Amino acid sequence: MQARVSVTLKPGVLDPQGKAIEGALHALGHGAVESVRQGKVFDVALKATDRAAAEAELRRVCEALLANTVIEDYAIAFPGEPA
Amino acid sequence: MQARVSVTLKPGVLDPQGKAIEGALHALGHGAVESVRQGKVFDVALKATDRAAAEAELRRVCEALLANTVIEDYAIAFPGEPA
Repeated sequence: MQARVSVTLKPGVLDPQGKAIEGALHALGHGAVESVRQGKVFDVALKATDRAAAEAELRRVCEALLANTVIEDYAIAFPGEPA
Repeated sequence: MQARVSVTLKPGVLDPQGKAIEGALHALGHGAVESVRQGKVFDVALKATDRAAAEAELRRVCEALLANTVIEDYAIAFPGEPA
């Protein structure tokens, strides 16, 4: 079973990497860009075939390793399935 | 207008970072995880209000800076709108 985990900074947490990208885009003439925040995405293949079990396992994985829940939020999606 | 750009490695491109995460998860007892591939996500706020114009601008931004199209694919999504 294929899942996608997105890890993004919580609102209010400073994102110097996003700011740097924003500055670079403005310098390149992309003035239409107002702001950029960067996060991480993980495409995870799981042995589980049951969606609920897969989601529960992914939550444990996110809490243990993929996300720093002090400053980051995570979202779990199953592509090819209605959200 | 808010958009989300996901940048992922093309299939076949080696992903040592994903492999390291996979190994760490196995070591932590998460054997249900078969494989992990890591990518980047950018939450971009744009001045454009027209979806087609925003998407065209984001394509230019991806080609110019956000993605290395030799080894990476990008996908543009507008959250809050049907895909």
